Amino acid sequence: MVTMDISADRLLADLDALAGIGGRLDGGVDRVAGSPADLEARAWLAGRLTAAGLAARTDATGNVFGHVPGAIPWLLSGSHTDTVPAGGRLDGAYGVIAALEVLRTLHEAGHPAAAALEIVNFWDEEGAGPDSAGGLTGSTALCAGDHVDRIRAYLELHVEQGPRMERAGLGLAAVEGIVGIERHQVVVHGTANHAGTTPMAERADAGRAAACVAAEIPGRVLTLDGDMVVNVGHIAFLPGAPNVVPGEARLVVEWRAARDDSLRLAAKELRELAHDTAAAFGCTGEVVRLSRKPPALFHPDLCDLVEDACRATGAPVARMFSFAGHDAGVLSAHVPTAMLFVPSADGISHSPREHTPAPQLAEGCRALLEAVVRAAERGPHGFAPTPRDEG
Amino acid sequence: MVTMDISADRLLADLDALAGIGGRLDGGVDRVAGSPADLEARAWLAGRLTAAGLAARTDATGNVFGHVPGAIPWLLSGSHTDTVPAGGRLDGAYGVIAALEVLRTLHEAGHPAAAALEIVNFWDEEGAGPDSAGGLTGSTALCAGDHVDRIRAYLELHVEQGPRMERAGLGLAAVEGIVGIERHQVVVHGTANHAGTTPMAERADAGRAAACVAAEIPGRVLTLDGDMVVNVGHIAFLPGAPNVVPGEARLVVEWRAARDDSLRLAAKELRELAHDTAAAFGCTGEVVRLSRKPPALFHPDLCDLVEDACRATGAPVARMFSFAGHDAGVLSAHVPTAMLFVPSADGISHSPREHTPAPQLAEGCRALLEAVVRAAERGPHGFAPTPRDEG
Repeated sequence: MVTMDISADRLLADLDALAGIGGRLDGGVDRVAGSPADLEARAWLAGRLTAAGLAARTDATGNVFGHVPGAIPWLLSGSHTDTVPAGGRLDGAYGVIAALEVLRTLHEAGHPAAAALEIVNFWDEEGAGPDSAGGLTGSTALCAGDHVDRIRAYLELHVEQGPRMERAGLGLAAVEGIVGIERHQVVVHGTANHAGTTPMAERADAGRAAACVAAEIPGRVLTLDGDMVVNVGHIAFLPGAPNVVPGEARLVVEWRAARDDSLRLAAKELRELAHDTAAAFGCTGEVVRLSRKPPALFHPDLCDLVEDACRATGAPVARMFSFAGHDAGVLSAHVPTAMLFVPSADGISHSPREHTPAPQLAEGCRALLEAVVRAAERGPHGFAPTPRDEG
Repeated sequence: MVTMDISADRLLADLDALAGIGGRLDGGVDRVAGSPADLEARAWLAGRLTAAGLAARTDATGNVFGHVPGAIPWLLSGSHTDTVPAGGRLDGAYGVIAALEVLRTLHEAGHPAAAALEIVNFWDEEGAGPDSAGGLTGSTALCAGDHVDRIRAYLELHVEQGPRMERAGLGLAAVEGIVGIERHQVVVHGTANHAGTTPMAERADAGRAAACVAAEIPGRVLTLDGDMVVNVGHIAFLPGAPNVVPGEARLVVEWRAARDDSLRLAAKELRELAHDTAAAFGCTGEVVRLSRKPPALFHPDLCDLVEDACRATGAPVARMFSFAGHDAGVLSAHVPTAMLFVPSADGISHSPREHTPAPQLAEGCRALLEAVVRAAERGPHGFAPTPRDEG
């Protein structure tokens, strides 16, 4: 355990100051990427860096970096300060401010790890703006450029955004990876018809088939892998009139799993269910995969290091997967990566009600400091590089 | 059986001429009430009446009437010439042109029934226009005015708009009434949440509950009354994003039944299903009745007369309920009413593909002539009046 300490007061004060930029009366934050508030927050961060005697740099994408002047850092840590509309004050912001606090602490202590550490505030993680490239924009751009060649490890501290840690009484978690996500659209083709004069036995009711698929798919998928989550977030019957038998119906199913084979089995299950159910109602069903993100597996050595650093704080710790996407997922395909989570009260996120108690925020920042120091001690060649472009 | 006969050629030629007004290249008709084509068709009908030496009159609503000059008729027959967009050439038009042909035939034969008969082309039966009062507008206006006081019976000939007659090999049907229709909206309230980070067991997934209701309600209702029809024509999950657990879901259920108690039992069944299913998913469910039209029961004596008139043509005949709404449903609350149906090929209606073979169209017109003569013989006091405003 390192003997220096972060300043919890400074951490919390900076979080408060940042929450005031784009801050809402309800305690939430409107700081969609590219908005005036988002740009103001990035400029504010650069100001906090220079006020601490650190160097600030903004790249062509809009990512803001900070490091000790003159150093050539190789260990990256950070997150993002953009938010969803009416978002919370911690999602992303916490990981950026905690990295800032860790770098300030190391710099003030004259610790050698300070020179190894670069902090980052990624551009447009959320993808919430009308002109967004879809989110994870800054981290994707970083990994496409040459700056990433200098980075040998990435650490990201974040709020869990779910209730699992709070329910389990955990103070910290070492995150092993991000679940894979697939979205599939089911389209059922039937025959639009008069909802009065068409006998029930002669209908090809696309809506009825689609409703059966939507009702059954969650249970089917969970039977395959009880740790998965499944959601039918959108459904529509066409033409959509009360007195017309739906001639077409569409629904979108999304599932997430830590294991790639679970994603594939779920897709097979959905195709069978859609085809069989459509046929049972005299319709045809097709399933189109709209998107697929395979599970992002973090670096096992770096996860072990993070877990040990978390345990050194004395908090109850577990390893877990993230069910939400993060910039760390992008980085993990290029450099050894791991994440740290602190609990989210009631699991609420993307909401003005997003909250983590101050002592847990300070504890998370201490764990990040510990992890940075331990990683820096290993040196830039301390972790086996992540294989690129394999498979 | 009357010995005079309608002119099938004239009937079909008039149907062709009318189909040309607002006619589409695909054989369908665009004659939404109030459109230039609709007004042209009504003027054309008045022209056909005067060309036959008959009197034409248009009331303040837009209903067009025809009768023998100088007569004070009491037996009304007709339908409507307005269509849905891209509608068929028979829905409504057939009942108007057949009534015209019957009146012409009686007038030319010097038959005493001619003076008893008034024909009508009701305004805006379909309710398809943007400024429509909702359909059945002309018949509703007629029944609100004083002209209806002179009417002692109403007969309407129409295409079935469903496949039941064709499947059963029927040439004609005496229609006993129009099924009642109820529409109910189910609203399920859950909790919108992150579709990744929220564990399945902690979700209050309004969409999943609504899908189960939509999947199950048809079977539940048909168990109560196998002659009913049920449709879920509209469903929506809110906010409607693939990665958000639906916090609210809405669906609209419509059912039709010949028996009022079946309508009531179905509503009870839906309320129980919605409440129980919502609760099973940690949600609450409410059911709101959006609309209710009780079954319209036609006049039993007049139905018997119509059935006998149909049988006199030699065609296979049955009695049945209409599963679609008609102006006759409005009239039946005020005057003794009955309908005659001819088959619809493949049951198709509200479509350019709407079709009934010419011999069946002629047969239907002959049955209407026979029914008009038989009703006229009974005289204006031949049918017990329909009780008004009872219950």
